[in-house]
Amino acid sequence: MEPLTSRQHSGLLTDLYELTMAAGYFQSRFNARATFELFVRKLPDERNFLVAAGLEQALHFVENIRFAAEEIEFLRHLPLFRHVHGEFFDYLARFRFTGDLWAIPEGSLVFAGEPLLRVTAPIIEGQILETCLLSAINFQTMVASRAARLNIAAKGKPVVEFGARRAHGSEAGIFAARAAWIAGCQGTSNVIAGKLFGIPTYGTQAHSWVMAYEDESQAFDRFLDVFPEQATLLLDTYNVRAALRKIIARGRKPAGVRLDSGDLAADSRWVRAQLDRVGWRDVQIFASGDLDEGRISSLLRHGAKIDAFGVGSALVAPTDARNLSMIYKLVELERDGKVREAAKLSESKSTYPGAKQVFRFANRAGKWQKDLIALASESHPTAAPLLVPVMRAGKRLGPPEPLAAARARCTESLKHLPARLLSIQHAAPYPVRYSQPLKNLLQKVRRRIQQRS
Amino acid sequence: MEPLTSRQHSGLLTDLYELTMAAGYFQSRFNARATFELFVRKLPDERNFLVAAGLEQALHFVENIRFAAEEIEFLRHLPLFRHVHGEFFDYLARFRFTGDLWAIPEGSLVFAGEPLLRVTAPIIEGQILETCLLSAINFQTMVASRAARLNIAAKGKPVVEFGARRAHGSEAGIFAARAAWIAGCQGTSNVIAGKLFGIPTYGTQAHSWVMAYEDESQAFDRFLDVFPEQATLLLDTYNVRAALRKIIARGRKPAGVRLDSGDLAADSRWVRAQLDRVGWRDVQIFASGDLDEGRISSLLRHGAKIDAFGVGSALVAPTDARNLSMIYKLVELERDGKVREAAKLSESKSTYPGAKQVFRFANRAGKWQKDLIALASESHPTAAPLLVPVMRAGKRLGPPEPLAAARARCTESLKHLPARLLSIQHAAPYPVRYSQPLKNLLQKVRRRIQQRS
Repeated sequence: MEPLTSRQHSGLLTDLYELTMAAGYFQSRFNARATFELFVRKLPDERNFLVAAGLEQALHFVENIRFAAEEIEFLRHLPLFRHVHGEFFDYLARFRFTGDLWAIPEGSLVFAGEPLLRVTAPIIEGQILETCLLSAINFQTMVASRAARLNIAAKGKPVVEFGARRAHGSEAGIFAARAAWIAGCQGTSNVIAGKLFGIPTYGTQAHSWVMAYEDESQAFDRFLDVFPEQATLLLDTYNVRAALRKIIARGRKPAGVRLDSGDLAADSRWVRAQLDRVGWRDVQIFASGDLDEGRISSLLRHGAKIDAFGVGSALVAPTDARNLSMIYKLVELERDGKVREAAKLSESKSTYPGAKQVFRFANRAGKWQKDLIALASESHPTAAPLLVPVMRAGKRLGPPEPLAAARARCTESLKHLPARLLSIQHAAPYPVRYSQPLKNLLQKVRRRIQQRS
Repeated sequence: MEPLTSRQHSGLLTDLYELTMAAGYFQSRFNARATFELFVRKLPDERNFLVAAGLEQALHFVENIRFAAEEIEFLRHLPLFRHVHGEFFDYLARFRFTGDLWAIPEGSLVFAGEPLLRVTAPIIEGQILETCLLSAINFQTMVASRAARLNIAAKGKPVVEFGARRAHGSEAGIFAARAAWIAGCQGTSNVIAGKLFGIPTYGTQAHSWVMAYEDESQAFDRFLDVFPEQATLLLDTYNVRAALRKIIARGRKPAGVRLDSGDLAADSRWVRAQLDRVGWRDVQIFASGDLDEGRISSLLRHGAKIDAFGVGSALVAPTDARNLSMIYKLVELERDGKVREAAKLSESKSTYPGAKQVFRFANRAGKWQKDLIALASESHPTAAPLLVPVMRAGKRLGPPEPLAAARARCTESLKHLPARLLSIQHAAPYPVRYSQPLKNLLQKVRRRIQQRS
């Protein structure tokens, strides 16, 4: 198989229809400048907000997207492309993204309907990016949003991302660790994500370590020999209580113990009591094993004595919401000097036309009051505009943002969110309105389209 | 950010605890040869079988795993490793996988408890691979298994993988297309997956194409100009029936039409009737939009006139089963010439010890009757052993299998599966038993562990 290298910025990282449309626009000389917006139509039922993430990977792709010679050859030989003229393939050979991007920075809290990204570019360029932008931002935003919920459930106790083995391949694992870190997780078990992004890494021993020794006490001893100050010993390979008794009997204090199965609430209380009884009050109790925000919340309500949580599947392969169903829609077109707003008006899936900005209104204390989704041309001086320019004429407007800045933005943003939304239960929704000029525009476009039908 | 290149075979593609255990084994001179097995504990409720996939990516990783100098430096400076001796890092610098692998080939049908992969190697090597093997095989097996269900629901009508934008990043999208193809999907929208794996690619136009034109008829015309023989025109941007009337009125026959929203059953019947009325009987009706096996099955039951289905989220981001919760367990250890079987005996999560083989028994007509999970050393001459050797002393035993062979194996296997299991409903389970020698061994190990407690 070819190395991943060659394909990280490949123009073929897209759905085929993006390229057929590209050929169509090219060959019919449809020279328009288009604006596309990327957003979530509707929050999953139990979500009160989303945490934007994945922008950095999206920008990296946009800046570097290229079609290699052999990729163009591949396209040229697709039966579907048999009537496409050679000029189109020459165009792909010199393809670069030359457009402008506005985005809501990573770590920001966003709601349904709010564009996380706005792309304005020659229509072919904007179109080809669709698939990759969606997959980068949809995935990381999903993970970050889930991570925020886990942290709310954990009430300040650390949550560590443990999902690498449950992720959809290693790349997904790496970006999941990144997104979880943005949204306040304490660290990750994923070593390479730790190296790439400077995320603190966590991990000590698995059941296999204990199973490898004939004697469980010996397994614990050998681990303490190598990691005298930082060993977290796993208690549930055979029997939690027997394991803890052995550790206490040996008299060597570990940094922590971990429970990965069984009745975590009851076991953690028992373990805490035993540890305290021998004066090991600073030994941390770590819990893992199919945890999600519901279980974490329930454990804490039932008096579990757990100091930190490891969460895998719930972050990287969640089932509580299919995914965010993020979409990327054409909203405006400029052709031959004329601007025309575009909207999709099918029954179940209509979208608002026009290039947009999101304005966030806060009260004097800084608590957010409402968001207004408005035309980009509107002015709302008392509100903060959320979309900021990040790329102009294909060039970034600044260096990549340090990941710590995105994380700090998330932490800070959560303080401004109305308190009722800091819940894993569905709360009365944060007010998001569409501006009157935007509503008027939708009516105008609707009439225009109906008249032509 | 560093390029993906440098990390495709990185030894850091793992959970940190694999490396702390590695350091622990190294430093305490625990020189054992270990056998680990990778399997699914339990089928998700509504699944009757799984389709094995992802082995090729796993083998590619195992063959090439290395620790680069700067990766070793990173580990050396982790606070957790401060007491680890320098010799361990020297060992990582020359780390190669030197072990043996047995596996059930891709495209095979497997059941709960059956090892898809068996790794026998120096314990450190086997341990470090865990995370990456799980993520590669868990993900592709999940997608392939879902794809098989979609194909069952579609009753022979083509299903095309459309998931790139919903996948967990672009790598996940690529491997999802691969897995779906193994399990009988007709092709993919994912262009680079088409190129990398020779999978047929599908795709024509999006709503944005129609929205870009002031007039829908013009949008269809321009597309037909460029793709006169193969255009599939999208009907639901504004109004399905109005769109089809326009196409018919123009008199240029497209290859197909696509419905992406609305009442697919009613609309497809209406569309089919109109197309037939003008003699366009060979124009295909393609449906997409949040389809899964339940909806496909229901559409066909309700007389939908759909010729092919495009499926995205259900394949790449399914919510019907958290994931397969595949695990990788130590089952046997050879140290100082003595073999010792290992098992995990915690209440909810016990595993069978010993290196295993899966024997499949068929009747004279070739229909499978039952599987027997047995010790690798057992002999069952009337059954087919499913695990075959794929790597010895770190070297593959043959070239990578062509993807078409895995796909053919899946198609063929489905013919041998008892017919009741070819259903998207839960059927009486396929009989999978553990052999008596394996049960005896579990008892022996259980007694041994209990005696020591």
